[in-house]
Amino acid sequence: MAWVYLSRVVEGPCAALSALIESVGVVEAARAVRECALPETLRGPTEARRGMDCAERDLAVMERIGGRVVTPDDEEWPAWRMLGLSQLDPSVDEGAAVPLVLWVRGPRSLAECTEQAMAVVGARCSTGYGNQVTGEIAGELASRGWTIVSGAAFGIDGMAHRAALAVGGATIAVLACGVDRPYPVQHDRLLAEIADTGAVISEYPPGVTARKHYFLARNRLIAALADGVVVAEAGMRSGARNTVKWARRIGRPALAVPGPVTSAASVGCHRMIRESEALLVTCADDVIDEAGPLRLSLPGAVPPAPEDNLSPEEAKVYSALPQTGSRLPRLLADQANLPLPAVRAALSSLELSGLVGCDANGWYRLATQPRSPTSTR
Amino acid sequence: MAWVYLSRVVEGPCAALSALIESVGVVEAARAVRECALPETLRGPTEARRGMDCAERDLAVMERIGGRVVTPDDEEWPAWRMLGLSQLDPSVDEGAAVPLVLWVRGPRSLAECTEQAMAVVGARCSTGYGNQVTGEIAGELASRGWTIVSGAAFGIDGMAHRAALAVGGATIAVLACGVDRPYPVQHDRLLAEIADTGAVISEYPPGVTARKHYFLARNRLIAALADGVVVAEAGMRSGARNTVKWARRIGRPALAVPGPVTSAASVGCHRMIRESEALLVTCADDVIDEAGPLRLSLPGAVPPAPEDNLSPEEAKVYSALPQTGSRLPRLLADQANLPLPAVRAALSSLELSGLVGCDANGWYRLATQPRSPTSTR
Repeated sequence: MAWVYLSRVVEGPCAALSALIESVGVVEAARAVRECALPETLRGPTEARRGMDCAERDLAVMERIGGRVVTPDDEEWPAWRMLGLSQLDPSVDEGAAVPLVLWVRGPRSLAECTEQAMAVVGARCSTGYGNQVTGEIAGELASRGWTIVSGAAFGIDGMAHRAALAVGGATIAVLACGVDRPYPVQHDRLLAEIADTGAVISEYPPGVTARKHYFLARNRLIAALADGVVVAEAGMRSGARNTVKWARRIGRPALAVPGPVTSAASVGCHRMIRESEALLVTCADDVIDEAGPLRLSLPGAVPPAPEDNLSPEEAKVYSALPQTGSRLPRLLADQANLPLPAVRAALSSLELSGLVGCDANGWYRLATQPRSPTSTR
Repeated sequence: MAWVYLSRVVEGPCAALSALIESVGVVEAARAVRECALPETLRGPTEARRGMDCAERDLAVMERIGGRVVTPDDEEWPAWRMLGLSQLDPSVDEGAAVPLVLWVRGPRSLAECTEQAMAVVGARCSTGYGNQVTGEIAGELASRGWTIVSGAAFGIDGMAHRAALAVGGATIAVLACGVDRPYPVQHDRLLAEIADTGAVISEYPPGVTARKHYFLARNRLIAALADGVVVAEAGMRSGARNTVKWARRIGRPALAVPGPVTSAASVGCHRMIRESEALLVTCADDVIDEAGPLRLSLPGAVPPAPEDNLSPEEAKVYSALPQTGSRLPRLLADQANLPLPAVRAALSSLELSGLVGCDANGWYRLATQPRSPTSTR
């Protein structure tokens, strides 16, 4: 009841209150707020609503809609996901605080379904191209066991949720309003479906309506709850850039999908890639390469693909190249038992086929599939 | 005559011969080759054709087609462009050598028209999208005084040359065969037009036909003669990647245009961007930002665009932000004479509009056009 009361009082993140709870416990903190026995920093944020105790009513509303409130004391609290937020400096931005509680609709444990999760967000005014790519990437990730986290907005967000639902995958919608209010209202059905199998969550108590700066606070939760953020399309001033900023602040990879340079809906993605705010990704494999768990690498180069159709000389020279490191043409000639000009011609052909490269120490093998599932990260 | 003779003997780059010429002079080097008074390393490369002296005939051919041979002794030799090549290690790759001579058709001085030049290359199997983007970027660069360097191939190369010709700009075609042979033969007319106003050049003597590894050597010249290399479209194993590799080896920026991730003709571009082999560019301005001359920056942030329609609070808070550096919300509240929660709400709105950001020291102004012509590089 103390958590629920406090969540209503501050409506959203409040680093000072979180600090107070940490130091004196939630019950004592609630008493202090009620009695206004507070340090200066907490008087402002609690002033408007500290007299309003509707915790019982809030819990009744949640029960009616089949929801619950999840507090840091609960087992399903996604504690390690919140670590990134708790390490930010609240003196710079109070909005960076860990949420007090999470209001949740849906059958899944938050801790479990955020264990392997990817945020997929983007433009509300998405294009057919963006929708298609979002569907492919989010669908593929969801079918491989990744929970898709997004904001339930029009455009890319909605596509990401739908793609996860379509393959029977898990998806979480993070709202900037109470979980009893469908926002946007046209996504009423979509949100109901997400609440049936995944989770619709918010740090705002039931009944709270979305405000402009609540979306920014919401974006930090989207970033915090996932292993990375994929932006499928973003215009010049997309809110997705804010989610990417949060991802970078809390140490999650920020990824962006390129598109035609002639499309206004890809301008934000290109800008983020160009300014090194996000890495370029083209498919679910790329996303997993950047944001997924580390994989072990098998030593040794990948052999050339059969379609390469190497000439006998090319095959000899390729075989003479070491598995790792570089070798000079003269040594290759000795080893392949070929005249030097033939080795040079073969190296040129192999280079044209993308199979070899050269550096200051000589020629070396290039992996034919540089981002294959066995590559080191 | 000595240069012309030697160019025919080695057919293409030969670091060992360049070194000999540098040490004993070209006339003495020609004598040594003719008499086979040579170190071991030069016997192989000169063996096949050292008895063949057709320098007079070669010069006659050039005269007939209105061409000339340009040697390092000539004033129009693009000497500083060749510096990048001369710094590479020939023991790793003989193909990296400075060309012996350049065979040229066209009215322009090579040194002059490569002073500000951009290579624009890419897939032979280009798409409508790639052609359009190439036309826009190459046309814009050419109309702003940049010489467009390319390889006269089908697809992107041809589009790049045509875009330059269409705006009356300069363009150079670098061939992997003699300049008397149109390659590809379907570009006969295009090459004639380039030779009329720009330059068609090659390091191979007249009559020489293109061979697979000549294209790789040719690519190094494309990279060397320009300030940077733009790849407009490239498939998985495009030759453009080889040109990019040369650009990187000789210290020229390598740039790639993204496209739909669903397009096979953009796979190579995305891969190069993803693997940090090339920077993402979307337009001529981006290209000039990366490869053009350094520009001075005007101090101070760019003011918000009029379309931002800031609220009075947002405008006050924005004004209270310093021109450079960050400021804490509390200080902003003092300065803007606003309550702290109002400052926070305004900062959130400004952030959503992409006008402000925050770091460990507080909130700061974001430039509204981060890649504007006045930005620092």
